[in-house]
Amino acid sequence: MIHVGIIGAGSLVANEIIKILCNHPESKLTYVNSRTFLNKPLCSIDYTLHGKYDDLLFQEYSIKKIKKSCDVVFISRSHGESSPIVKDIFYNSSCKIIDLGADFRIKDNKHFEFWYHGAKHVCFELVKEAVYGLPELHGDKIKNARLVANPGCYATSIILAVAPLIANNFIDPLDINIVASSGISGAGREPKPGFNMFIDLYGNVKPYKIGIHPHIGEIEQELKCFSNNLGPITFIPQVVPLDRGIMSIITFKLTSEIEEDTITGIYNKFYSGCNFVKILKNRVPEIKDVVGTNICEINPVINKHSKKLTVFSTLDNLVKGAGGQAVQNMNIMFG
Amino acid sequence: MIHVGIIGAGSLVANEIIKILCNHPESKLTYVNSRTFLNKPLCSIDYTLHGKYDDLLFQEYSIKKIKKSCDVVFISRSHGESSPIVKDIFYNSSCKIIDLGADFRIKDNKHFEFWYHGAKHVCFELVKEAVYGLPELHGDKIKNARLVANPGCYATSIILAVAPLIANNFIDPLDINIVASSGISGAGREPKPGFNMFIDLYGNVKPYKIGIHPHIGEIEQELKCFSNNLGPITFIPQVVPLDRGIMSIITFKLTSEIEEDTITGIYNKFYSGCNFVKILKNRVPEIKDVVGTNICEINPVINKHSKKLTVFSTLDNLVKGAGGQAVQNMNIMFG
Amino acid sequence: MIHVGIIGAGSLVANEIIKILCNHPESKLTYVNSRTFLNKPLCSIDYTLHGKYDDLLFQEYSIKKIKKSCDVVFISRSHGESSPIVKDIFYNSSCKIIDLGADFRIKDNKHFEFWYHGAKHVCFELVKEAVYGLPELHGDKIKNARLVANPGCYATSIILAVAPLIANNFIDPLDINIVASSGISGAGREPKPGFNMFIDLYGNVKPYKIGIHPHIGEIEQELKCFSNNLGPITFIPQVVPLDRGIMSIITFKLTSEIEEDTITGIYNKFYSGCNFVKILKNRVPEIKDVVGTNICEINPVINKHSKKLTVFSTLDNLVKGAGGQAVQNMNIMFG
Amino acid sequence: MIHVGIIGAGSLVANEIIKILCNHPESKLTYVNSRTFLNKPLCSIDYTLHGKYDDLLFQEYSIKKIKKSCDVVFISRSHGESSPIVKDIFYNSSCKIIDLGADFRIKDNKHFEFWYHGAKHVCFELVKEAVYGLPELHGDKIKNARLVANPGCYATSIILAVAPLIANNFIDPLDINIVASSGISGAGREPKPGFNMFIDLYGNVKPYKIGIHPHIGEIEQELKCFSNNLGPITFIPQVVPLDRGIMSIITFKLTSEIEEDTITGIYNKFYSGCNFVKILKNRVPEIKDVVGTNICEINPVINKHSKKLTVFSTLDNLVKGAGGQAVQNMNIMFG
Repeated sequence: MIHVGIIGAGSLVANEIIKILCNHPESKLTYVNSRTFLNKPLCSIDYTLHGKYDDLLFQEYSIKKIKKSCDVVFISRSHGESSPIVKDIFYNSSCKIIDLGADFRIKDNKHFEFWYHGAKHVCFELVKEAVYGLPELHGDKIKNARLVANPGCYATSIILAVAPLIANNFIDPLDINIVASSGISGAGREPKPGFNMFIDLYGNVKPYKIGIHPHIGEIEQELKCFSNNLGPITFIPQVVPLDRGIMSIITFKLTSEIEEDTITGIYNKFYSGCNFVKILKNRVPEIKDVVGTNICEINPVINKHSKKLTVFSTLDNLVKGAGGQAVQNMNIMFG
Repeated sequence: MIHVGIIGAGSLVANEIIKILCNHPESKLTYVNSRTFLNKPLCSIDYTLHGKYDDLLFQEYSIKKIKKSCDVVFISRSHGESSPIVKDIFYNSSCKIIDLGADFRIKDNKHFEFWYHGAKHVCFELVKEAVYGLPELHGDKIKNARLVANPGCYATSIILAVAPLIANNFIDPLDINIVASSGISGAGREPKPGFNMFIDLYGNVKPYKIGIHPHIGEIEQELKCFSNNLGPITFIPQVVPLDRGIMSIITFKLTSEIEEDTITGIYNKFYSGCNFVKILKNRVPEIKDVVGTNICEINPVINKHSKKLTVFSTLDNLVKGAGGQAVQNMNIMFG
Repeated sequence: MIHVGIIGAGSLVANEIIKILCNHPESKLTYVNSRTFLNKPLCSIDYTLHGKYDDLLFQEYSIKKIKKSCDVVFISRSHGESSPIVKDIFYNSSCKIIDLGADFRIKDNKHFEFWYHGAKHVCFELVKEAVYGLPELHGDKIKNARLVANPGCYATSIILAVAPLIANNFIDPLDINIVASSGISGAGREPKPGFNMFIDLYGNVKPYKIGIHPHIGEIEQELKCFSNNLGPITFIPQVVPLDRGIMSIITFKLTSEIEEDTITGIYNKFYSGCNFVKILKNRVPEIKDVVGTNICEINPVINKHSKKLTVFSTLDNLVKGAGGQAVQNMNIMFG
Repeated sequence: MIHVGIIGAGSLVANEIIKILCNHPESKLTYVNSRTFLNKPLCSIDYTLHGKYDDLLFQEYSIKKIKKSCDVVFISRSHGESSPIVKDIFYNSSCKIIDLGADFRIKDNKHFEFWYHGAKHVCFELVKEAVYGLPELHGDKIKNARLVANPGCYATSIILAVAPLIANNFIDPLDINIVASSGISGAGREPKPGFNMFIDLYGNVKPYKIGIHPHIGEIEQELKCFSNNLGPITFIPQVVPLDRGIMSIITFKLTSEIEEDTITGIYNKFYSGCNFVKILKNRVPEIKDVVGTNICEINPVINKHSKKLTVFSTLDNLVKGAGGQAVQNMNIMFG
């Protein structure tokens, strides 16, 4: 039985983790921290949790309690806010740590500071201890990791879609164009007037953070593992009127003439044995097929007109894009 | 007073035209044809029309009645279905014609047959009489046209966004990448199970017709007027859970270093005097701002990271993308 | 030309008033006050206002400026917040006042305190000066009013639907059951976590304030004008995943057997000459038909099974339910 | 292992049953019939079924195959269409039958013909064999039933909410007022232009079938088991822009003064041991809390103002309101 703690447990991502753990036979939730919901029960953030862990209240942060009651801790805090907590837990307990924030995803401190320029980081020295928690790429390292940096939602959908193509030199790495549509839960539970209110998004499509979205940093870092030659990607995110789901559309120039089937074959080989990546054939994925699942569906299409390759990649941003992947990492860390 | 007839008046686009004409002081609706709604009143397709033209019933097609009662006829029929009607009206009356279908948009017969491969065309000889009804590009010709081919909705948003850039040689015409998100009204009133039912689109994003969407034909035709060198465009349309609105996101390589302000300036100059194109500065457009208007909002953004240029272009697919533009053309044709 | 000022002009209701006034040939917006949007232009709350009154910035509250520049002032503040402003403007200027809040709707101070129990009221003496601004009932008084209390959105849809029935003794006034579904814009622009965020309402229906919704006070007050015998109403409001629109469903016991047509006739007579109330025949109204209009659609249906009478009443909560009705009142006040 | 067949397996309800059975350890799907999807695989109706029962194709109706391969058959056909199939299977095999249609719900043939007046019924003699499949009321009979008539979605939510009140004489049985809001999946997969297209429901609320909705028949039949005195109910259904979920709001006159807690206690006692009915205390249920579950959430509220009792009852129309309850019945029938 794995004893689990969650820091920042009032977030949407933490909410998803709690729901997944309620159906996880080998885990037990022992500690939940939240400033906003202090002393309230779990069902105060989500009534569907009523009747589950009813004795567990949101508590103040306490390293003593964590040390005593947890084998692993999930941290769901904004960038800049998780590094002090990771530092504390790493040095003052033997808990394993899965950080859902951004503080340990980017290996190069300068890149971190570029993409998260307001964020203070109190333990850059632990970044090298952290494994980027994309199980399909780093499963072996995750197995033995003390600290896992859980990837961003857009990043997961894009890296999984692009890595096999770059690894096989199929596409021009200098010219990667991405448009990704996301449900609004990616923006979290905190009100951001003008963005995540019902009246903001209903009947609307809203691109944002053009050229400055911080997921670009981790996407390029991970893709560079497969090509020395990667150019800066063009990444245009937009919110669409959905609660959940990401559709990433990625267009490439092919380096040579190649059949769609060959590409599909390469994907299948690359993700052989991976239960949570599904390569579609003759079918463009749709967001509703992956909502509520931990699956990333990918379909490469060669454009008959322009001869370019477009890859479609969908996932549920709160599951495979966050909480589900975090539990997937936990499972790997505990065998 | 302009006497107006509508063929295929039961469609969503025709519905929009009727609503616009109800507030148009210089026009009078005199004839509406529909097979599906034969002998029913206008309000049977849209209750908000109740109390307006209550004596006007949907009628069978009749060239006699058209000849007698109309100065101009809007035709809202599928591709392949409007050419026989256009032929009849063109030769057997003196009515002006605004065709909302695709039969007269593409000048080159082979291209038409390529993009609309099932469609029979009974009067290719009239294609050369037709003016492509994008007022911002062809206003002068529309003024004197007998027959106007009203552009497609995606085509309008994309051509308006790209033309000034190609005309000024700012971008690489061989490498144009477009992802466009559309509300479902573009699919019309006819049920298409799996596509435009509520359960199909709710909670979903669905790309479709990759590399084969027929609007590609008219987009490339119109853009080639500005560059001999245009390569095949990559156009990925997707439906999003909205009734109305299009967001086109178009990414280019710049041919040289250039300031965003210079590009904005070029757009403003190109569309000087055009009331229905609005160039935004330091603001990415949103679909909800243009819904219900005849305005196309365009914003060019130079990506600080990748140095590419992305242009965002929004409009209401039923207004500036169809019925509103059709009335705009009528106004020009009748001074 | 009517010179118009708006206090609390950053609200959704004020936004709607501004949009309506932009198309109002006889009015000119001269003063807009907002604490939240101080010194910002109108388009900072709604980009569709860009290009209209661009020189007008949101200003601090100033009785001097109001006195100097306004013939009429709309006040859009929460209950308890408008009474001090009304007091100031009433005594220190000659401006007419249309208050969109609740402070002057309820004539009986005890009732006001009951329904708005936290609210402080600084000028109960002015309540008797205020006319309840439902033009279809109080048009004559509104004409000469210095101060109009604009009705609540639910209240408008319900009073208009019930008044003719009570006035004609058709229904049992002791047994009125109302379920009303509303879009979320009624909750305003301020974030209310758990209620008006996108993730709260998407895929949801949420009843609230059972038996304590303060609109009950004004509904009962207005209906009591038609019957000494009115019992307490049962009013169940719920939010549904829409931005705009109210559907009120009101069920009564009939006092005697009566034909549906007779009832429809009574409604038509009662609202004869009223352009903004539309009585439907053989058609239950739908929210989408009234969105964006100042019309309240009403349809009485005698239940063939239970013999009860159910009346359906729809309107756009921001237009006929708030801003549109406020402008309707202004038009009456200024002839 | 229970071998399961489904007739009319292309419906939304059948789709839900298939998804539930995919996670049911004791069942195996052996036969699926559909005319519309003949010879196609399961994933052709729902891509999330891809990879599950991939060898199973939709087949023509065949009593031989049913006899050979099924222990139980679910039938998902319109009213009038299931009785011939039930007849065939009942007499020519030993399969147990769970009919999701309406043909065997109503015991009194005249009532059936009244509520379903176009429907032909070929085996009224089997109606007396059928058990109304509401496990919380008829669990014992379901255990030994050969034929179960699975209840309607609205009916389930309403009967569960009202039965304990009538059984305890708390409310006036002559005066029951119901407004129920439903997601559109209740209307099925077949296009019904004007009703279940995306453009029909988006931004809309649409009441329908006032006084004639056929679920009234089964609701009154079941409630009459608890009171000889039940009057005709007033039932107003409306569709709201959701895919799934029902919110029933039921208002009663209390027969005597009573505390809310007493009522809650009665509900808890009535549904003691029922895992799929959840009585809420001090919380009005919301649709999103029950979507995807087999739970019906019920909350009685005494209106402090009008002293009436309003009961809120929510469920997922495709799960507890149809497919989930059908599987619940199967589990009871097979112990």
